[in-house]
Amino acid sequence: MAVYVQKFGGTSVGSVERILAVAKRIANSVAAGNQVVAVVSAMSGETNRLSALGAELSAAPAAREMDVLLSSGEQVTSALLSMALTDLGIKARSYLGSQIKITTDSSHQKARIEHIDPENLLSDLNNGFVPVVAGFQGVNSDGDITTLGRGGSDTTAVAIAVALQAEECQIFTDVDGVYTADPRMVKDARLLETITFEEMLELASLGSKVLSQRSVEFAGKYATPLRVLSSFSNEFPGTLITNEETSMEKPVVSGITYSRDEAKLTLLGVPDIPGVAAKILGPIGRENIEVDMIVQNVGADGMTDFTFTVKREAYDHALNVLEKIKGELGASMVIGDKTIVKVSVVGVGMRSHAGVATIMFDALAEESINILMISTSEIKISIVIAERYMELAVRSIHKAFGLSDKAVSEA
Amino acid sequence: MAVYVQKFGGTSVGSVERILAVAKRIANSVAAGNQVVAVVSAMSGETNRLSALGAELSAAPAAREMDVLLSSGEQVTSALLSMALTDLGIKARSYLGSQIKITTDSSHQKARIEHIDPENLLSDLNNGFVPVVAGFQGVNSDGDITTLGRGGSDTTAVAIAVALQAEECQIFTDVDGVYTADPRMVKDARLLETITFEEMLELASLGSKVLSQRSVEFAGKYATPLRVLSSFSNEFPGTLITNEETSMEKPVVSGITYSRDEAKLTLLGVPDIPGVAAKILGPIGRENIEVDMIVQNVGADGMTDFTFTVKREAYDHALNVLEKIKGELGASMVIGDKTIVKVSVVGVGMRSHAGVATIMFDALAEESINILMISTSEIKISIVIAERYMELAVRSIHKAFGLSDKAVSEA
Repeated sequence: MAVYVQKFGGTSVGSVERILAVAKRIANSVAAGNQVVAVVSAMSGETNRLSALGAELSAAPAAREMDVLLSSGEQVTSALLSMALTDLGIKARSYLGSQIKITTDSSHQKARIEHIDPENLLSDLNNGFVPVVAGFQGVNSDGDITTLGRGGSDTTAVAIAVALQAEECQIFTDVDGVYTADPRMVKDARLLETITFEEMLELASLGSKVLSQRSVEFAGKYATPLRVLSSFSNEFPGTLITNEETSMEKPVVSGITYSRDEAKLTLLGVPDIPGVAAKILGPIGRENIEVDMIVQNVGADGMTDFTFTVKREAYDHALNVLEKIKGELGASMVIGDKTIVKVSVVGVGMRSHAGVATIMFDALAEESINILMISTSEIKISIVIAERYMELAVRSIHKAFGLSDKAVSEA
Repeated sequence: MAVYVQKFGGTSVGSVERILAVAKRIANSVAAGNQVVAVVSAMSGETNRLSALGAELSAAPAAREMDVLLSSGEQVTSALLSMALTDLGIKARSYLGSQIKITTDSSHQKARIEHIDPENLLSDLNNGFVPVVAGFQGVNSDGDITTLGRGGSDTTAVAIAVALQAEECQIFTDVDGVYTADPRMVKDARLLETITFEEMLELASLGSKVLSQRSVEFAGKYATPLRVLSSFSNEFPGTLITNEETSMEKPVVSGITYSRDEAKLTLLGVPDIPGVAAKILGPIGRENIEVDMIVQNVGADGMTDFTFTVKREAYDHALNVLEKIKGELGASMVIGDKTIVKVSVVGVGMRSHAGVATIMFDALAEESINILMISTSEIKISIVIAERYMELAVRSIHKAFGLSDKAVSEA
């Protein structure tokens, strides 16, 4: 029998009615002959309620105790879903992280899984039980409760799927899957049937609403098929994330993603000598400012303009740092812009297809959209443009690659 | 250093403010040179909230899962109190039942403690930590979470006090201690400084609002001093429950207790032959009706009247049973009364003092209160009277034994 790990997020178990609906979905899967392990998040709102209690008590709550506090949310859901399953005549049993020995390191609130002992789960599955695992939590070598940080329940599900060599790890959420572009922006965006782990990681803005990067990396590392699908609808099979390129001819571009939360800073007239990049980015890094894109243009006069992007909230901080080091570096001026966005096209197909950049740049030129920065990787091309052009840019690139029409996109 | 186990009930930790107050109280105790283990209940209302969720999901929630669900309430409080203590500069660490190996049998929702491993607690105490234990919960030999049933956090506290051979197990609650009578009924009821375990067990109506019978029995069995005191006030030292009769001259009567929730049934004209009591109480017991007092009067005519009391809610049920067996027993008539109450005086002193009953009956006679039934044990005399006389009876007996005036009561 095939083992499926099914993970249900906060909104999927956000009420008694939703928990009953999830129980029925699992019951159907069991009736279809599958072995199912369920992994659950805290009911939506519960983690916030608990965090607020902690914050009221202490300005800097002890990390060990925050984990004890927050992990209770998933514990409650695991018990409730087990009750609901039992009521439907499905044998079920809840498990905390400590009970199936999800051992982690001791980094409270962002622990990393070191080992899972699948013995209890396997014995339950073989005896016809549905184990219902409280996500997000583990236990360290001292027996203390740990939590896995943001998206932790996804990580729990993937780790269990890996340990059980499951057929699929299914992440049930409140969206139908991964689209070729944000459906709120591009009316005819298409639901992707499959996508590779690599593409999913690069499609940050599309993907992070759906799945944590960490769980995608984890599943990719062990080649465990990951499926994102809706717990609110039975209509869509969701999006399968695998290593395999299942289509004979993989589309050149799988999806378009964007990020509004960007700002760029430029040091003008920096002497073009070895080590200058480190002299600029060193002080930025020491202030814990994260840098995304970096572009350096070499001028004819032995001077260079050095540009990089940061999160918008870090803009003022980064500007201060640059103003301070400007003199020492011999730069002529610092300029910046907080009204920029990043738009990226992603696809493993572009590895073997020349001309992807041309299609993208042509589409933008046709709309008279000026490109401020360009950065490329093996399976991704990112550009920075003025914020006001974002929707127009995403839509015209989506159209240029024929992403809404499947037949055309199989380039 | 003396070890104190301090248990805080639901209202004592019912809000962020209350938890902070409890943390300060513990900090003071630590500053006074004591080693403290805290045991906490769920925040007031939380257990009901969780039970309601379970009840919404299932008419008969799986007992194993109810324990997983409900135990999360104490878990939350243990984390919050640990945070609050840490913020006050007191080293603190929360513990679940499973983490200090409070092993129990597998009777979910009413498990009995089999063993506690004091190692973690002792090592914490020796390192200057305050362990904050989630009450009410344990773990069975399979590693499943169990809960201890009503008053379970008291039981946890006593068990830990026994395991650590603590100086005292202090139960902080929302009353000042144990009074000679219900202070709402008897204006000048006096707070008892000390009382014996035996008396506390007999003082059901006064005691059960304060402490579960089970925790009193448990502490008594191991002679662990138990103190009931208010978490809302520092004024009163509370009531100490011990084996020792600390006063040279123990008062004859320690307190007066009552129960409103009573009804009596009488079978008139039953042939007075061996086995008749069993023939009456057998069918009652098989219907799971609990019987409290039993009185049998032998008549001169070889017939007897057989009277017993039950809880009021069981009255109609018991009446039905008697009507059915009446003919078989040859009884002439079944009569009953649902408007009766039980009033009891309790005191280990009455063992060695004759005349306690006389004082009690005289006091009632003076108020023209008719006694309907009498039952006595070594340290308790109970009477049944009409409900309308209850307050008058309690007040007049309280006065007759001089309970409000300490000097007089040291008979």
